[in-house]
Amino acid sequence: MSIHPLEEILHPQSIAVVGASDSGRGSGFLAPLIQYGYRGKIYPVNPKYSEIMGIQAYARIRDIPGPVDYVISTIPASQVLGMLEDCSQKNVKVVHLFTARFSETGRKDAAELEHKILERARNADIRLIGPNCLGLYYPRERIAFHDDFPEEPGEAGLASQSGQAVGEIIRMASMRGMRFSKAISYGNAIDFNECDYLEYFAQDPETKIIMMYIEGVKDGRRFLKILRNVTATKPVIIVKGGRGESGTRATASHTASLAGTMEVWETVVHQAGALSAGNLEELVDLSTAFYFLPPVLGYRVGVAGGSGGSSVLAADECEEAGLNVIPLPSEIREELKSKGSLIWDWIGNPADMSIRIDRAFDTGDMLEIMAKNDNFDLLIAFMRGPHHRGDQKISADAVLERHRIGKLNNKPLLIVMPDFGPGIEDDEEYAWMRELMIEVREKLVSTNIPVYPSIGRAARAASKLIDYYQRRRSR
Amino acid sequence: MSIHPLEEILHPQSIAVVGASDSGRGSGFLAPLIQYGYRGKIYPVNPKYSEIMGIQAYARIRDIPGPVDYVISTIPASQVLGMLEDCSQKNVKVVHLFTARFSETGRKDAAELEHKILERARNADIRLIGPNCLGLYYPRERIAFHDDFPEEPGEAGLASQSGQAVGEIIRMASMRGMRFSKAISYGNAIDFNECDYLEYFAQDPETKIIMMYIEGVKDGRRFLKILRNVTATKPVIIVKGGRGESGTRATASHTASLAGTMEVWETVVHQAGALSAGNLEELVDLSTAFYFLPPVLGYRVGVAGGSGGSSVLAADECEEAGLNVIPLPSEIREELKSKGSLIWDWIGNPADMSIRIDRAFDTGDMLEIMAKNDNFDLLIAFMRGPHHRGDQKISADAVLERHRIGKLNNKPLLIVMPDFGPGIEDDEEYAWMRELMIEVREKLVSTNIPVYPSIGRAARAASKLIDYYQRRRSR
Repeated sequence: MSIHPLEEILHPQSIAVVGASDSGRGSGFLAPLIQYGYRGKIYPVNPKYSEIMGIQAYARIRDIPGPVDYVISTIPASQVLGMLEDCSQKNVKVVHLFTARFSETGRKDAAELEHKILERARNADIRLIGPNCLGLYYPRERIAFHDDFPEEPGEAGLASQSGQAVGEIIRMASMRGMRFSKAISYGNAIDFNECDYLEYFAQDPETKIIMMYIEGVKDGRRFLKILRNVTATKPVIIVKGGRGESGTRATASHTASLAGTMEVWETVVHQAGALSAGNLEELVDLSTAFYFLPPVLGYRVGVAGGSGGSSVLAADECEEAGLNVIPLPSEIREELKSKGSLIWDWIGNPADMSIRIDRAFDTGDMLEIMAKNDNFDLLIAFMRGPHHRGDQKISADAVLERHRIGKLNNKPLLIVMPDFGPGIEDDEEYAWMRELMIEVREKLVSTNIPVYPSIGRAARAASKLIDYYQRRRSR
Repeated sequence: MSIHPLEEILHPQSIAVVGASDSGRGSGFLAPLIQYGYRGKIYPVNPKYSEIMGIQAYARIRDIPGPVDYVISTIPASQVLGMLEDCSQKNVKVVHLFTARFSETGRKDAAELEHKILERARNADIRLIGPNCLGLYYPRERIAFHDDFPEEPGEAGLASQSGQAVGEIIRMASMRGMRFSKAISYGNAIDFNECDYLEYFAQDPETKIIMMYIEGVKDGRRFLKILRNVTATKPVIIVKGGRGESGTRATASHTASLAGTMEVWETVVHQAGALSAGNLEELVDLSTAFYFLPPVLGYRVGVAGGSGGSSVLAADECEEAGLNVIPLPSEIREELKSKGSLIWDWIGNPADMSIRIDRAFDTGDMLEIMAKNDNFDLLIAFMRGPHHRGDQKISADAVLERHRIGKLNNKPLLIVMPDFGPGIEDDEEYAWMRELMIEVREKLVSTNIPVYPSIGRAARAASKLIDYYQRRRSR
């Protein structure tokens, strides 16, 4: 198998940032390369500086003494053609055009300039990422474009037409414990497009699941062919932006993509074995499930840890998501009875844990019993934490122990935990509880357990995961 | 008009807590009465104590020297009949039975006991709240059953079959700025039921919007008749728990309610002019809109403050929610042009504010221009806050000023703001940003602006609000 064209350019030995400066927008690409410890050569390029952030600067790319593999362009659109001449002389492999104001403006002259840039690059054998995009986040190579992206690499690959979306997705996904092999914001996609990125992640051994935010598909036939192939081995989750009338208008002015009708899109994506998400939250919800859960092939769910109305609604939302909330198996009732439970004939699935009259078992006991029962394909547990701690402060480890986390026989498990933002009264007790639950969540995600802020979101993600593996098995 | 039976019992001059103790479950009702400063007499009742929390205790209700209006029962089910004898002697008006383990257990003897209790109460002219519930939160009377409910009263009325749901709803709604006239957890509803609570809130001048969590309706005909009447003047938002097969099972063991089919429920609720919510988050989302927004009669929305993919998806989610994301009116383009905007012919609706090349206007300018334009019925604005503050810390007031909050010509406005939980790196800068945005949110809700964590949730709430007022107008 030949090396993928993107693989050839994603390991640069040197990066030049054209238009770099020591503050403002021009510093936005230079600073993260330094901060993340990029190991290759860094060349700031700007005739106004001799040095930027302690690194020698050059007036033009052609002035750089050594070879330049990768160029990040932050200069105005009107200067790009000239810069490409320089790149050609230096045998630059790829130019990432952060530079915008091209076809997305809807202006004819800007679109023509964009077309000329592509021609010039093709003639010079230079590949282009963008224009109008934030480019590459590749933690293994210590390349990033925001200063708060995680340094550790992971196994999720992300290609997004919107750079804003990349930032939002990575922040949300990182909080859920996911980490990225690489993420690429690719904007107007005049050279490499969604087909190339998808194809790249398909063959990339560092990437286990593929996430995409797409506004328009340039070559639908090729895209679907690649998609059908990759979904046989890797899950692909796609958010389509620009689905409606106004969204199509917004898409045109954002990345100049031509969107098709949503119905056609949904149908073909589903037929190709991929998953469609309605927004970035859902994209992260689904990805979190695929990132952490093994293949699950049955819909029979056991739910524990809720109480009162939350248990009743948990059943509703699980069923509406397509899960099968089976009645509590009779052997579990018998076991509860034999253990001295007072309400063995009352408890059900969801197992309502508010019945504190029964000291014979707690949520952890119930999860442990459900985990070893073959009637359940997966478990969902609420972990709300104590609203009142009494006099005794409990530790995060005690909360996990109370739920028997890590002793659940490898039964697939999703945890539902509220986000714990500010409280009504942000007093000492609430602050303690919030810090505790944040620590609990960190411990959960560090042991590869997917955490969701609501039962509905957990149930929908689980159900779509099962759909995917069911369909994959029957292919 | 005669005084509603609930109105007669909700202003007690004295409350006895039967089964009170100085710690554990028996303290759970006594402590909040003291903490919230309940102004009537408080009588702890427990033969094991002479004094609880500094208040003289009595062995039995009949031992209390003065009159007793309201009794909270926390004693075991087996002791309730005896207690009712005492209540009868003291001419108690109402007993709130926190006491559980009745028909919800599915046991015949427990259901029979419940029935006997109702008979005994009726014979003694005592009204019952519950059993199996948390009872009353009435901030004006300084009655509460949790120690973190807001002390200030408001205009939302809540009746819920689940006490757990009351706690969750009040905490979520309070964070959005809502406050409550009264909230009642009513459990198995053997005497007062959902019809009575709905009828009460319908005539209650302290209540502007009505929120309900219902598992089963005892008298569907009466309920729908009341519902049809009240929705002509007050919005009613209902979550139905126990919608599916397993939910119906869970409902039976939670409050022993008999649920109907969901399709019938949805249809009749809609026909009666009420709103149906799928879970507690949606209940709070819809209620927040009704609590803060005026009647809105058109669907034409202006969206500003998003950028890149979030603007594109905002358009999609608004349209899918039923809002009309109209193209930017030409007079606005002209105004932008006259103000020196470089991208007057590019900017649209949603107004993508990521185009920082145009210093001529910011999100606040755009909102101000949209606010005075008659083509928009409502506005939705993103307020993400700065991820990087540079060297200059800005204040919460500066963030609001930047968005021209308070200068938007009374155009209905919804704000979309992430929840700002813990960051990827919980460093000093992130902590500063989180505190800033929490302060911004507090200022927003204190000026009666509804805040949502996502554009989809804001759009769906706005659209259902407009549906309601449209239908109400055409009645």
